[in-house]
Amino acid sequence: MKDNIMEYETVELDDEDGSIVIIDQTLLPGKTELIRLKTAQEIWDAIYFLKVRGAPAIGVTAAFGIYLLAKQIKTDDYDNFYKEFKKQKDYLNSSRPTAVNLSWALERMEGICLANKDKRVGQIKEALKTEAVAIKEEDIWVCKSIGEYGLSLVKPGDGILTHCNAGQLATSKYGTATAPIYLGQEKGYHFRVFADETRPLLQGARLTAYELLASGVDVTLICDNMSAMVMKNGWVNAVFVGCDRVAANGDTANKIGTSLVAVAAKRYNIPFYVCAPTSTIDLNTETGSHIRIEERPAEEVTQMWYKERMAPEGVKVYNPAFDVTDHDLITAIVTEYGIAKAPFETSFQEIFRKKKKEKSKK
Amino acid sequence: MKDNIMEYETVELDDEDGSIVIIDQTLLPGKTELIRLKTAQEIWDAIYFLKVRGAPAIGVTAAFGIYLLAKQIKTDDYDNFYKEFKKQKDYLNSSRPTAVNLSWALERMEGICLANKDKRVGQIKEALKTEAVAIKEEDIWVCKSIGEYGLSLVKPGDGILTHCNAGQLATSKYGTATAPIYLGQEKGYHFRVFADETRPLLQGARLTAYELLASGVDVTLICDNMSAMVMKNGWVNAVFVGCDRVAANGDTANKIGTSLVAVAAKRYNIPFYVCAPTSTIDLNTETGSHIRIEERPAEEVTQMWYKERMAPEGVKVYNPAFDVTDHDLITAIVTEYGIAKAPFETSFQEIFRKKKKEKSKK
Repeated sequence: MKDNIMEYETVELDDEDGSIVIIDQTLLPGKTELIRLKTAQEIWDAIYFLKVRGAPAIGVTAAFGIYLLAKQIKTDDYDNFYKEFKKQKDYLNSSRPTAVNLSWALERMEGICLANKDKRVGQIKEALKTEAVAIKEEDIWVCKSIGEYGLSLVKPGDGILTHCNAGQLATSKYGTATAPIYLGQEKGYHFRVFADETRPLLQGARLTAYELLASGVDVTLICDNMSAMVMKNGWVNAVFVGCDRVAANGDTANKIGTSLVAVAAKRYNIPFYVCAPTSTIDLNTETGSHIRIEERPAEEVTQMWYKERMAPEGVKVYNPAFDVTDHDLITAIVTEYGIAKAPFETSFQEIFRKKKKEKSKK
Repeated sequence: MKDNIMEYETVELDDEDGSIVIIDQTLLPGKTELIRLKTAQEIWDAIYFLKVRGAPAIGVTAAFGIYLLAKQIKTDDYDNFYKEFKKQKDYLNSSRPTAVNLSWALERMEGICLANKDKRVGQIKEALKTEAVAIKEEDIWVCKSIGEYGLSLVKPGDGILTHCNAGQLATSKYGTATAPIYLGQEKGYHFRVFADETRPLLQGARLTAYELLASGVDVTLICDNMSAMVMKNGWVNAVFVGCDRVAANGDTANKIGTSLVAVAAKRYNIPFYVCAPTSTIDLNTETGSHIRIEERPAEEVTQMWYKERMAPEGVKVYNPAFDVTDHDLITAIVTEYGIAKAPFETSFQEIFRKKKKEKSKK
C-alpha cells in the first residue's frame, strides 16, 4: 500500500490479472482500500454503489470493463462475439443510466467492434484495449491541459477555494477543478486551498480534503456557509469549481451550492473559474434555465449516512443535487482548448474551432 | 405531555415545586423531554451542557435559578443571606462565562438584594421572585414587539428564509427572528418558511425546523448551500435572522453563514432583516471589525456529534462560530422599539431615545 493516494490512479487496468483496480470511494476518508473488479457483476456494482464516481472516472471504468469482459468471450466468430459484447455492454450501461460518460465510453467501444468487424476476433480484442487506454489517456490529457490553462490564472501562494469534488477521484488523474492545484503543487506554488465540505453528501470533506491532504497540499476544510467569511478575510484569490453541464450562454450547472459561492466571489471581487472539459459544454442547451435539476431524497439531509437523524420526523426537505450559476457570475470557463470568457457564445465558437483543428491534425 | 411544543414556554418556574421546568434541547429533535431543575448543580449543568441555550433563555433560567436557591437559604440575617446568595450567584455565573445575558440577569437579581437590604429576608425573597418573573415577562414583551414590527414588513403567503435558531427555544417565547412568523401564524398568514440547517451544529435542522413544524408552520429544511437557489427560484420574499451583537454602524455579528445569506439576498433583491433586542445593540463597538469572533473545535466539523468521522484525520479546519454581516447588506434592523434603517447610527439614536422615554413612563 502506497502512503500517498496521489501515487495511485483512480482507475487502473491490470491486463495480466484481468482486473480493474480502483480505490473504493465509499470507504473514504476512513479507509483507503484498493479493490479489483473482474466480473461483469463486480464492475456494475462498483459504478452503481459509487465505489467509483465522477463522470470521467466512470467512463474509463466502463471502457476497461467492457474490454476485459470482451476478452473473456470464447469464440472466433464475429457475430457470436458481437452478440455477447452487446449483451455485456447493455448490462454495464444499466448501472447508472443518467451518467453521460458511461454510455459515451461504451458507445465508443462498440464503435471499435463495428469498425473492425472484418478482422479476427483476437485483433478486435486488441483494438478494444487500445481504445480503452486511449479514453483514459485522453481524460488525463484533458485534465492536465485544463490544469495548465488554470494555472496561468493564479500565482504562487494564492488562496484557492473549491466546492465539492472535481478532483483526481472523479477523473483518471489531476481532476478538473483541482488540476491547477496539483500542477501548481508540482511546481512548488504553495497554494492555500479551502475546501467547502459540500452538504449533504460531503464530497468536499470526504474526498477533496482527503486527496489534497494526501498529496501534501495545504488544505483547510470549511463548512459551506463559511465561504463568504474566508473571502472577506482576504484569504481567497480565486475560486475553481468543476461542472456537470455548461449551456451555450455560459450558465453552468454544478453541485448544489456552487452558485452561492459565485455570488459571494462577486461580492468580494474574487475571480470565479469553472473548469470544463469541452465534452460538458452543451451548445444545444441555450441557457441554464433549460437544464433539468435532479432532486434527491430528503434522507440525505435529515440523516447522516442514513443512520443518525438530525431533523424532526416529517419535516419537508428541498434537496436539489445541482444548481445553475448564472454566466455573469463566471469570470472564465477553463477548457482543455483554452480559456473562454464573456461573451461565452463567441468564445465557445473559438474553442470548438480550435478543438476541431487539433483533432484533425491527429 | 402536550402534543405541541408551542404550548410550553422554554423556561417555566414551578414555584410550588421549587423547580424550573425546561425542554432538554440536547435531546431534540429525537425526543421532547421536560426536565426539572432544583439544585444549584442541576441548574449549572443545564446551562453548561446546553440543555437550555440562547442568550435570553439562559438569562431567564439564571434568574429563576438564583431565586429558587435564595428561597432555600435558611437564615433571617441579611448578611448571612447575602453571603450565601453571592456564593450561589457566582457559581451559576461560572456555567457559561461568555454569555452576556447570564451575568446581566444575575447582576440584576443581586441588585434586588442590595436595594432591599433593610427589608426582612422573606420580603427580599419575594422581591427576587418578582424580579425574575419581570425578566421573563420583559423577554416575552421584547420578542413580541419585535414580532409585531417584523410582521409589518411582510405579507400573507410570503416566503421567509431564516438561518440558525433565533426561535422560541432561544428565548422565553416567540423568539426574535421567528417572532414575525409565529405572530403571522396566529393571524393565518400562511408563510412558507425555509430553514437553513446551519452547519456545523445544525441548530436550523434540529431546533428551528422542529419548533416551526411543531407549531404548524409550513417549513422546508434546506442545506446552507441552497439559499441562493431557493431565492433564485423566487420562493423567498424576506430573510429574518437573529443576532449576537450589533455594532454602532449596523454591522451585525450572528451565527456563521448569516453574511453569506445576506450576500445572496442582495443579489436577488430580497430584503434582509436582522431581529435585535436593543440589549444586543452595542453603541460602544464602532464597526463589525471590532467584534471578536470565537473559533470553535475542528471536531464540530469533522465528526458528527463527536462520533462519526466525516473528514480525513489531520485536516486543518477553520470553524468560526459567528460572522459579521456588513451593514450595507442589511435592509433593516428590527428592535422592540421600532425598525432601524440606514444610516443606522442616527436610526439607533431615535430607537434609544424612544426606549428611554418609554422606560421613564413605567
